[in-house]
Amino acid sequence: MTEFDVEGLQRRLAVFAAARNWEQYHTPKNLAVALSVEASELVEIFQWLTPEQSARVMETAETAHRVADEVADVLAYLLQFCEVLGIDPLAALAAKIDRNEVRFPVPEPPEPGNGHSSE
Amino acid sequence: MTEFDVEGLQRRLAVFAAARNWEQYHTPKNLAVALSVEASELVEIFQWLTPEQSARVMETAETAHRVADEVADVLAYLLQFCEVLGIDPLAALAAKIDRNEVRFPVPEPPEPGNGHSSE
Amino acid sequence: MTEFDVEGLQRRLAVFAAARNWEQYHTPKNLAVALSVEASELVEIFQWLTPEQSARVMETAETAHRVADEVADVLAYLLQFCEVLGIDPLAALAAKIDRNEVRFPVPEPPEPGNGHSSE
Amino acid sequence: MTEFDVEGLQRRLAVFAAARNWEQYHTPKNLAVALSVEASELVEIFQWLTPEQSARVMETAETAHRVADEVADVLAYLLQFCEVLGIDPLAALAAKIDRNEVRFPVPEPPEPGNGHSSE
Repeated sequence: MTEFDVEGLQRRLAVFAAARNWEQYHTPKNLAVALSVEASELVEIFQWLTPEQSARVMETAETAHRVADEVADVLAYLLQFCEVLGIDPLAALAAKIDRNEVRFPVPEPPEPGNGHSSE
Repeated sequence: MTEFDVEGLQRRLAVFAAARNWEQYHTPKNLAVALSVEASELVEIFQWLTPEQSARVMETAETAHRVADEVADVLAYLLQFCEVLGIDPLAALAAKIDRNEVRFPVPEPPEPGNGHSSE
Repeated sequence: MTEFDVEGLQRRLAVFAAARNWEQYHTPKNLAVALSVEASELVEIFQWLTPEQSARVMETAETAHRVADEVADVLAYLLQFCEVLGIDPLAALAAKIDRNEVRFPVPEPPEPGNGHSSE
Repeated sequence: MTEFDVEGLQRRLAVFAAARNWEQYHTPKNLAVALSVEASELVEIFQWLTPEQSARVMETAETAHRVADEVADVLAYLLQFCEVLGIDPLAALAAKIDRNEVRFPVPEPPEPGNGHSSE
Protein backbone atom coordinates (compact mmCIF):
# COMPACT_ATOMS: atom_id res chain seq x y z
CA MET A 1 0.00 0.00 0.00
CA THR A 2 1.24 3.45 -0.86
CA GLU A 3 2.36 5.76 1.91
CA PHE A 4 1.20 8.84 -0.01
CA ASP A 5 -2.24 10.41 -0.25
CA VAL A 6 -3.91 12.47 -2.94
CA GLU A 7 -4.64 15.51 -0.78
CA GLY A 8 -1.06 15.70 0.46
CA LEU A 9 0.24 15.58 -3.11
CA GLN A 10 -2.25 18.24 -4.20
CA ARG A 11 -0.99 20.49 -1.40
CA ARG A 12 2.65 19.96 -2.43
CA LEU A 13 1.78 20.75 -6.07
CA ALA A 14 -0.08 23.92 -5.05
CA VAL A 15 2.82 25.13 -2.87
CA PHE A 16 5.27 24.30 -5.67
CA ALA A 17 3.34 26.31 -8.27
CA ALA A 18 2.71 29.25 -5.94
CA ALA A 19 6.39 29.54 -4.98
CA ARG A 20 7.32 29.85 -8.69
CA ASN A 21 4.42 32.20 -9.55
CA TRP A 22 3.11 29.61 -12.02
CA GLU A 23 -0.52 29.87 -10.89
CA GLN A 24 -1.15 32.46 -13.62
CA TYR A 25 -0.66 29.72 -16.22
CA HIS A 26 -2.88 27.21 -14.46
CA THR A 27 -6.26 27.96 -16.03
CA PRO A 28 -8.49 24.87 -16.25
CA LYS A 29 -8.09 24.96 -20.03
CA ASN A 30 -4.28 25.03 -19.88
CA LEU A 31 -4.15 22.28 -17.26
CA ALA A 32 -6.46 20.04 -19.32
CA VAL A 33 -4.29 20.66 -22.38
CA ALA A 34 -1.09 19.96 -20.41
CA LEU A 35 -2.66 16.73 -19.12
CA SER A 36 -3.35 15.58 -22.69
CA VAL A 37 0.18 16.53 -23.80
CA GLU A 38 1.65 14.42 -20.98
CA ALA A 39 -0.70 11.52 -21.78
CA SER A 40 0.65 11.62 -25.35
CA GLU A 41 4.23 11.56 -24.07
CA LEU A 42 3.30 8.36 -22.25
CA VAL A 43 1.76 6.97 -25.45
CA GLU A 44 4.90 7.89 -27.41
CA ILE A 45 6.87 5.27 -25.45
CA PHE A 46 4.48 2.60 -26.78
CA GLN A 47 3.67 3.86 -30.28
CA TRP A 48 5.74 1.39 -32.32
CA LEU A 49 5.60 -1.55 -29.87
CA THR A 50 3.58 -4.70 -30.44
CA PRO A 51 1.04 -5.57 -27.71
CA GLU A 52 3.52 -8.17 -26.43
CA GLN A 53 6.46 -5.74 -26.33
CA SER A 54 4.27 -3.19 -24.54
CA ALA A 55 3.75 -5.67 -21.69
CA ARG A 56 7.51 -5.79 -21.03
CA VAL A 57 8.37 -2.07 -20.78
CA MET A 58 9.19 -2.29 -17.08
CA GLU A 59 11.96 -4.87 -17.70
CA THR A 60 14.42 -2.20 -18.86
CA ALA A 61 15.38 0.21 -16.05
CA GLU A 62 15.59 3.24 -18.32
CA THR A 63 12.20 2.68 -19.96
CA ALA A 64 10.64 1.82 -16.60
CA HIS A 65 11.86 5.13 -15.22
CA ARG A 66 10.53 7.00 -18.25
CA VAL A 67 7.10 5.35 -17.92
CA ALA A 68 6.85 6.17 -14.20
CA ASP A 69 7.97 9.73 -14.93
CA GLU A 70 5.20 10.26 -17.49
CA VAL A 71 2.64 8.70 -15.13
CA ALA A 72 3.74 11.27 -12.54
CA ASP A 73 3.31 14.12 -15.04
CA VAL A 74 -0.18 12.97 -16.06
CA LEU A 75 -1.23 12.62 -12.40
CA ALA A 76 0.30 16.00 -11.50
CA TYR A 77 -1.78 17.84 -14.09
CA LEU A 78 -4.90 15.81 -13.31
CA LEU A 79 -4.63 16.68 -9.61
CA GLN A 80 -3.93 20.35 -10.29
CA PHE A 81 -6.87 20.49 -12.72
CA CYS A 82 -9.14 18.99 -10.04
CA GLU A 83 -7.75 21.39 -7.42
CA VAL A 84 -8.52 24.56 -9.40
CA LEU A 85 -12.05 23.35 -10.24
CA GLY A 86 -12.88 21.85 -6.82
CA ILE A 87 -13.34 18.29 -8.14
CA ASP A 88 -12.66 15.24 -5.93
CA PRO A 89 -11.10 12.85 -8.48
CA LEU A 90 -11.49 9.71 -6.35
CA ALA A 91 -15.16 10.46 -5.64
CA ALA A 92 -15.72 11.17 -9.36
CA LEU A 93 -14.22 7.79 -10.24
CA ALA A 94 -16.23 5.94 -7.58
CA ALA A 95 -19.45 7.52 -8.93
CA LYS A 96 -18.46 6.58 -12.48
CA ILE A 97 -17.83 2.94 -11.55
CA ASP A 98 -21.27 2.88 -9.88
CA ARG A 99 -22.86 4.13 -13.11
CA ASN A 100 -20.86 1.75 -15.30
CA GLU A 101 -21.94 -1.24 -13.23
CA VAL A 102 -25.52 -0.43 -14.29
CA ARG A 103 -24.61 0.53 -17.86
CA PHE A 104 -22.52 -2.58 -18.60
CA PRO A 105 -24.20 -5.47 -16.75
CA VAL A 106 -22.12 -8.60 -16.24
CA PRO A 107 -23.18 -11.22 -18.81
CA GLU A 108 -25.00 -14.03 -17.05
CA PRO A 109 -23.18 -17.38 -17.01
CA PRO A 110 -24.91 -20.19 -18.94
CA GLU A 111 -27.27 -22.27 -16.80
CA PRO A 112 -25.90 -25.61 -15.59
CA GLY A 113 -26.61 -28.40 -18.01
CA ASN A 114 -27.38 -25.94 -20.77
CA GLY A 115 -24.06 -24.35 -21.62
CA HIS A 116 -21.17 -25.06 -23.90
CA SER A 117 -19.39 -26.99 -21.19
CA SER A 118 -22.11 -29.67 -21.11
CA GLU A 119 -21.63 -30.60 -24.74
CA MET B 1 -11.17 14.94 2.47
CA THR B 2 -12.18 12.11 0.17
CA GLU B 3 -13.50 8.89 1.65
CA PHE B 4 -12.07 6.84 -1.22
CA ASP B 5 -8.59 5.46 -1.70
CA VAL B 6 -6.56 4.64 -4.78
CA GLU B 7 -6.02 0.96 -3.98
CA GLY B 8 -9.71 0.37 -3.34
CA LEU B 9 -10.61 1.96 -6.68
CA GLN B 10 -7.95 -0.08 -8.48
CA ARG B 11 -9.46 -3.24 -6.99
CA ARG B 12 -12.97 -2.24 -8.13
CA LEU B 13 -11.69 -1.49 -11.65
CA ALA B 14 -9.88 -4.85 -11.80
CA VAL B 15 -12.97 -6.76 -10.67
CA PHE B 16 -15.13 -4.79 -13.13
CA ALA B 17 -12.85 -5.60 -16.09
CA ALA B 18 -12.42 -9.27 -15.11
CA ALA B 19 -16.19 -9.83 -14.78
CA ARG B 20 -16.67 -8.58 -18.36
CA ASN B 21 -13.65 -10.43 -19.78
CA TRP B 22 -12.14 -7.08 -20.81
CA GLU B 23 -8.64 -7.89 -19.48
CA GLN B 24 -7.65 -9.16 -22.95
CA TYR B 25 -7.90 -5.56 -24.25
CA HIS B 26 -5.95 -4.04 -21.38
CA THR B 27 -2.41 -4.18 -22.71
CA PRO B 28 -0.26 -1.32 -21.40
CA LYS B 29 -0.23 0.16 -24.91
CA ASN B 30 -4.02 0.12 -25.23
CA LEU B 31 -4.52 1.56 -21.74
CA ALA B 32 -2.04 4.39 -22.42
CA VAL B 33 -3.84 5.13 -25.70
CA ALA B 34 -7.26 5.04 -23.98
CA LEU B 35 -5.91 7.42 -21.31
CA SER B 36 -4.86 9.90 -23.99
CA VAL B 37 -8.22 9.58 -25.79
CA GLU B 38 -10.04 10.39 -22.53
CA ALA B 39 -7.69 13.31 -21.81
CA SER B 40 -8.62 14.71 -25.23
CA GLU B 41 -12.32 14.32 -24.45
CA LEU B 42 -11.68 16.47 -21.38
CA VAL B 43 -9.83 19.02 -23.54
CA GLU B 44 -12.71 19.04 -26.04
CA ILE B 45 -14.94 20.69 -23.41
CA PHE B 46 -12.50 23.61 -23.26
CA GLN B 47 -11.27 23.88 -26.85
CA TRP B 48 -13.15 27.02 -27.91
CA LEU B 49 -13.35 28.69 -24.47
CA THR B 50 -11.36 31.76 -23.47
CA PRO B 51 -9.17 31.36 -20.37
CA GLU B 52 -11.84 33.26 -18.41
CA GLN B 53 -14.71 31.07 -19.64
CA SER B 54 -12.67 27.98 -18.83
CA ALA B 55 -12.53 29.05 -15.16
CA ARG B 56 -16.34 28.98 -14.94
CA VAL B 57 -17.14 25.52 -16.34
CA MET B 58 -18.38 24.21 -12.99
CA GLU B 59 -21.12 26.89 -12.80
CA THR B 60 -23.37 24.97 -15.23
CA ALA B 61 -24.57 21.66 -13.78
CA GLU B 62 -24.47 19.83 -17.10
CA THR B 63 -20.92 20.93 -17.97
CA ALA B 64 -19.76 20.30 -14.40
CA HIS B 65 -21.06 16.74 -14.65
CA ARG B 66 -19.35 16.25 -18.01
CA VAL B 67 -16.02 17.53 -16.65
CA ALA B 68 -16.17 15.26 -13.58
CA ASP B 69 -17.12 12.34 -15.83
CA GLU B 70 -14.07 12.84 -18.06
CA VAL B 71 -11.82 13.24 -15.00
CA ALA B 72 -13.14 9.86 -13.84
CA ASP B 73 -12.37 8.27 -17.21
CA VAL B 74 -8.81 9.65 -17.26
CA LEU B 75 -8.18 8.45 -13.70
CA ALA B 76 -9.72 5.04 -14.44
CA TYR B 77 -7.33 4.36 -17.31
CA LEU B 78 -4.36 5.82 -15.42
CA LEU B 79 -5.02 3.52 -12.45
CA GLN B 80 -5.56 0.46 -14.66
CA PHE B 81 -2.36 1.26 -16.59
CA CYS B 82 -0.44 1.48 -13.30
CA GLU B 83 -2.05 -1.74 -12.05
CA VAL B 84 -1.00 -3.84 -15.06
CA LEU B 85 2.58 -2.48 -14.94
CA GLY B 86 2.98 -2.51 -11.14
CA ILE B 87 3.52 1.23 -10.80
CA ASP B 88 2.50 3.14 -7.65
CA PRO B 89 1.20 6.40 -9.16
CA LEU B 90 1.27 8.38 -5.90
CA ALA B 91 4.86 7.32 -5.15
CA ALA B 92 5.84 8.18 -8.75
CA LEU B 93 4.38 11.66 -8.33
CA ALA B 94 6.02 12.21 -4.95
CA ALA B 95 9.40 11.25 -6.45
CA LYS B 96 8.80 13.58 -9.40
CA ILE B 97 7.98 16.54 -7.13
CA ASP B 98 11.20 15.81 -5.20
CA ARG B 99 13.18 15.97 -8.46
CA ASN B 100 11.37 19.09 -9.69
CA GLU B 101 12.15 20.94 -6.46
CA VAL B 102 15.84 20.54 -7.34
CA ARG B 103 15.37 21.17 -11.09
CA PHE B 104 13.29 24.35 -10.71
CA PRO B 105 14.68 26.18 -7.65
CA VAL B 106 12.47 28.89 -6.15
CA PRO B 107 13.76 32.30 -7.29
CA GLU B 108 15.26 34.14 -4.34
CA PRO B 109 13.37 37.23 -3.23
CA PRO B 110 15.25 40.55 -3.64
CA GLU B 111 17.17 41.59 -0.52
CA PRO B 112 15.50 44.24 1.66
CA GLY B 113 16.46 47.75 0.61
CA ASN B 114 17.81 46.45 -2.67
CA GLY B 115 14.72 45.70 -4.75
CA HIS B 116 12.90 47.54 -7.51
CA SER B 117 10.61 49.23 -5.02
CA SER B 118 13.49 51.14 -3.41
CA GLU B 119 14.44 52.94 -6.59
CA MET C 1 0.80 28.51 -54.47
CA THR C 2 2.78 25.52 -53.34
CA GLU C 3 4.93 23.65 -55.83
CA PHE C 4 4.36 20.34 -54.05
CA ASP C 5 1.49 17.90 -54.36
CA VAL C 6 0.00 15.40 -51.96
CA GLU C 7 0.50 12.33 -54.14
CA GLY C 8 4.17 13.15 -54.74
CA LEU C 9 4.75 13.53 -50.99
CA GLN C 10 2.93 10.27 -50.28
CA ARG C 11 5.21 8.52 -52.79
CA ARG C 12 8.33 9.99 -51.14
CA LEU C 13 7.09 8.91 -47.70
CA ALA C 14 6.36 5.37 -48.96
CA VAL C 15 9.81 5.05 -50.56
CA PHE C 16 11.43 6.47 -47.40
CA ALA C 17 9.68 3.94 -45.13
CA ALA C 18 10.29 0.98 -47.46
CA ALA C 19 14.03 1.73 -47.77
CA ARG C 20 14.34 1.58 -43.97
CA ASN C 21 12.09 -1.48 -43.55
CA TRP C 22 9.72 0.60 -41.39
CA GLU C 23 6.55 -0.61 -43.12
CA GLN C 24 6.21 -3.34 -40.51
CA TYR C 25 5.48 -0.64 -37.90
CA HIS C 26 3.00 1.22 -40.07
CA THR C 27 -0.27 -0.46 -39.10
CA PRO C 28 -3.24 1.90 -39.34
CA LYS C 29 -3.49 1.83 -35.55
CA ASN C 30 0.16 2.80 -35.03
CA LEU C 31 -0.01 5.55 -37.65
CA ALA C 32 -3.16 7.03 -36.07
CA VAL C 33 -1.47 6.94 -32.66
CA ALA C 34 1.71 8.54 -34.08
CA LEU C 35 -0.44 11.25 -35.69
CA SER C 36 -2.00 12.07 -32.33
CA VAL C 37 1.40 12.09 -30.60
CA GLU C 38 2.71 14.60 -33.18
CA ALA C 39 -0.45 16.72 -32.85
CA SER C 40 0.25 16.90 -29.11
CA GLU C 41 3.84 17.96 -29.76
CA LEU C 42 2.40 20.83 -31.79
CA VAL C 43 0.03 21.68 -28.93
CA GLU C 44 2.91 21.59 -26.45
CA ILE C 45 4.40 24.70 -28.09
CA PHE C 46 1.19 26.59 -27.25
CA GLN C 47 0.16 25.08 -23.93
CA TRP C 48 1.10 27.97 -21.63
CA LEU C 49 0.59 30.81 -24.13
CA THR C 50 -2.28 33.29 -23.98
CA PRO C 51 -4.45 33.50 -27.13
CA GLU C 52 -2.58 36.70 -28.04
CA GLN C 53 0.87 35.17 -27.57
CA SER C 54 -0.20 32.16 -29.64
CA ALA C 55 -0.87 34.48 -32.61
CA ARG C 56 2.77 35.63 -32.58
CA VAL C 57 4.64 32.29 -32.60
CA MET C 58 6.00 32.82 -36.13
CA GLU C 59 7.82 36.04 -35.10
CA THR C 60 10.66 34.10 -33.47
CA ALA C 61 12.70 32.12 -36.02
CA GLU C 62 13.35 29.21 -33.66
CA THR C 63 9.70 28.78 -32.66
CA ALA C 64 8.56 29.26 -36.27
CA HIS C 65 10.85 26.43 -37.32
CA ARG C 66 9.57 24.21 -34.50
CA VAL C 67 5.94 24.88 -35.48
CA ALA C 68 6.56 24.10 -39.17
CA ASP C 69 8.46 20.97 -38.17
CA GLU C 70 5.55 19.65 -36.10
CA VAL C 71 3.10 20.52 -38.91
CA ALA C 72 5.28 18.39 -41.21
CA ASP C 73 5.22 15.48 -38.75
CA VAL C 74 1.43 15.62 -38.39
CA LEU C 75 0.96 15.75 -42.16
CA ALA C 76 3.48 12.94 -42.72
CA TYR C 77 1.58 10.53 -40.49
CA LEU C 78 -1.80 11.66 -41.83
CA LEU C 79 -0.68 11.00 -45.42
CA GLN C 80 0.86 7.63 -44.53
CA PHE C 81 -2.30 6.65 -42.64
CA CYS C 82 -4.39 7.53 -45.70
CA GLU C 83 -1.98 5.66 -47.98
CA VAL C 84 -2.18 2.37 -46.10
CA LEU C 85 -6.00 2.55 -45.91
CA GLY C 86 -6.60 3.85 -49.44
CA ILE C 87 -8.24 7.11 -48.32
CA ASP C 88 -8.02 10.29 -50.45
CA PRO C 89 -7.65 12.94 -47.73
CA LEU C 90 -8.49 15.92 -49.96
CA ALA C 91 -11.65 14.23 -51.28
CA ALA C 92 -12.63 13.30 -47.70
CA LEU C 93 -12.27 16.93 -46.64
CA ALA C 94 -14.22 18.24 -49.65
CA ALA C 95 -17.07 15.81 -48.84
CA LYS C 96 -17.00 16.91 -45.20
CA ILE C 97 -17.22 20.60 -46.10
CA ASP C 98 -20.20 19.76 -48.35
CA ARG C 99 -21.93 18.05 -45.40
CA ASN C 100 -21.06 20.83 -42.96
CA GLU C 101 -22.54 23.47 -45.27
CA VAL C 102 -25.89 21.70 -44.83
CA ARG C 103 -25.39 20.94 -41.13
CA PHE C 104 -24.39 24.49 -40.13
CA PRO C 105 -26.42 26.85 -42.34
CA VAL C 106 -25.21 30.43 -42.54
CA PRO C 107 -27.40 32.61 -40.30
CA GLU C 108 -29.56 34.85 -42.50
CA PRO C 109 -28.79 38.55 -42.29
CA PRO C 110 -31.61 40.71 -40.90
CA GLU C 111 -33.94 42.06 -43.59
CA PRO C 112 -33.40 45.70 -44.54
CA GLY C 113 -35.49 48.02 -42.40
CA ASN C 114 -36.26 45.18 -40.01
CA GLY C 115 -33.04 44.50 -38.19
CA HIS C 116 -31.32 45.69 -35.05
CA SER C 117 -29.48 48.38 -37.01
CA SER C 118 -32.76 50.19 -37.75
CA GLU C 119 -33.49 50.82 -34.09
CA MET D 1 -5.20 11.22 -58.46
CA THR D 2 -7.35 13.58 -56.46
CA GLU D 3 -9.24 16.35 -58.22
CA PHE D 4 -8.93 18.64 -55.19
CA ASP D 5 -6.09 20.89 -54.14
CA VAL D 6 -4.92 22.16 -50.78
CA GLU D 7 -5.27 25.88 -51.57
CA GLY D 8 -8.82 25.46 -52.85
CA LEU D 9 -9.81 23.60 -49.68
CA GLN D 10 -8.15 26.24 -47.51
CA ARG D 11 -10.18 28.92 -49.30
CA ARG D 12 -13.42 26.98 -48.77
CA LEU D 13 -12.61 26.52 -45.06
CA ALA D 14 -11.84 30.24 -44.68
CA VAL D 15 -15.09 31.27 -46.38
CA PHE D 16 -17.01 28.73 -44.28
CA ALA D 17 -15.60 30.06 -41.00
CA ALA D 18 -16.00 33.72 -41.97
CA ALA D 19 -19.67 33.26 -42.97
CA ARG D 20 -20.42 31.85 -39.50
CA ASN D 21 -18.30 34.40 -37.62
CA TRP D 22 -16.13 31.57 -36.26
CA GLU D 23 -12.82 33.31 -36.96
CA GLN D 24 -12.84 34.71 -33.43
CA TYR D 25 -12.33 31.16 -32.09
CA HIS D 26 -9.57 30.29 -34.55
CA THR D 27 -6.48 31.34 -32.62
CA PRO D 28 -3.44 29.21 -33.48
CA LYS D 29 -3.61 27.73 -29.98
CA ASN D 30 -7.28 26.71 -30.32
CA LEU D 31 -6.75 25.27 -33.80
CA ALA D 32 -3.75 23.21 -32.64
CA VAL D 33 -5.83 21.93 -29.70
CA ALA D 34 -8.79 21.12 -31.98
CA LEU D 35 -6.42 19.27 -34.31
CA SER D 36 -5.20 17.10 -31.43
CA VAL D 37 -8.78 16.45 -30.26
CA GLU D 38 -9.74 15.26 -33.76
CA ALA D 39 -6.59 13.11 -33.99
CA SER D 40 -7.68 11.43 -30.74
CA GLU D 41 -11.16 10.81 -32.17
CA LEU D 42 -9.43 9.00 -35.02
CA VAL D 43 -7.37 7.00 -32.52
CA GLU D 44 -10.51 6.13 -30.55
CA ILE D 45 -11.73 4.01 -33.49
CA PHE D 46 -8.59 1.86 -33.15
CA GLN D 47 -7.98 1.84 -29.41
CA TRP D 48 -9.09 -1.71 -28.60
CA LEU D 49 -8.24 -3.28 -31.97
CA THR D 50 -5.35 -5.68 -32.54
CA PRO D 51 -2.84 -4.62 -35.23
CA GLU D 52 -4.52 -7.13 -37.58
CA GLN D 53 -8.04 -5.84 -36.91
CA SER D 54 -6.82 -2.28 -37.44
CA ALA D 55 -5.76 -3.20 -41.00
CA ARG D 56 -9.35 -4.16 -41.87
CA VAL D 57 -11.29 -1.07 -40.71
CA MET D 58 -12.23 -0.06 -44.26
CA GLU D 59 -14.06 -3.36 -44.86
CA THR D 60 -17.13 -2.20 -42.91
CA ALA D 61 -18.92 0.70 -44.63
CA GLU D 62 -19.89 2.41 -41.38
CA THR D 63 -16.39 2.29 -39.88
CA ALA D 64 -14.85 3.30 -43.22
CA HIS D 65 -17.07 6.38 -43.26
CA ARG D 66 -16.16 7.21 -39.67
CA VAL D 67 -12.44 6.91 -40.41
CA ALA D 68 -12.67 9.15 -43.52
CA ASP D 69 -14.73 11.64 -41.53
CA GLU D 70 -12.10 11.92 -38.79
CA VAL D 71 -9.34 12.23 -41.42
CA ALA D 72 -11.30 15.15 -42.88
CA ASP D 73 -11.58 16.82 -39.45
CA VAL D 74 -7.86 16.43 -38.75
CA LEU D 75 -6.97 17.85 -42.16
CA ALA D 76 -9.49 20.71 -41.81
CA TYR D 77 -7.90 21.93 -38.59
CA LEU D 78 -4.37 21.38 -39.89
CA LEU D 79 -5.09 23.48 -42.98
CA GLN D 80 -6.80 26.23 -40.98
CA PHE D 81 -3.90 26.27 -38.51
CA CYS D 82 -1.46 26.66 -41.40
CA GLU D 83 -3.64 29.36 -42.99
CA VAL D 84 -3.73 31.59 -39.89
CA LEU D 85 0.04 31.26 -39.37
CA GLY D 86 1.07 31.50 -43.05
CA ILE D 87 2.66 28.04 -43.18
CA ASP D 88 2.75 26.01 -46.44
CA PRO D 89 2.14 22.49 -45.09
CA LEU D 90 3.30 20.67 -48.23
CA ALA D 91 6.54 22.68 -48.39
CA ALA D 92 7.08 22.04 -44.66
CA LEU D 93 6.70 18.30 -45.23
CA ALA D 94 9.01 18.30 -48.28
CA ALA D 95 11.68 20.09 -46.22
CA LYS D 96 11.24 17.63 -43.39
CA ILE D 97 11.65 14.61 -45.70
CA ASP D 98 14.85 16.22 -47.05
CA ARG D 99 16.18 16.54 -43.50
CA ASN D 100 15.11 13.02 -42.52
CA GLU D 101 16.91 11.52 -45.52
CA VAL D 102 20.13 12.89 -44.03
CA ARG D 103 19.22 12.08 -40.43
CA PHE D 104 18.20 8.46 -41.07
CA PRO D 105 20.53 7.15 -43.79
CA VAL D 106 19.43 3.99 -45.58
CA PRO D 107 21.37 1.04 -44.16
CA GLU D 108 23.79 -0.23 -46.80
CA PRO D 109 23.05 -3.72 -48.10
CA PRO D 110 25.70 -6.35 -47.32
CA GLU D 111 28.30 -6.74 -50.10
CA PRO D 112 27.79 -9.76 -52.37
CA GLY D 113 29.55 -12.83 -51.03
CA ASN D 114 30.03 -11.12 -47.68
CA GLY D 115 26.63 -11.20 -46.05
CA HIS D 116 24.99 -13.33 -43.45
CA SER D 117 23.45 -15.57 -46.06
CA SER D 118 26.86 -16.74 -47.26
CA GLU D 119 27.86 -18.13 -43.88
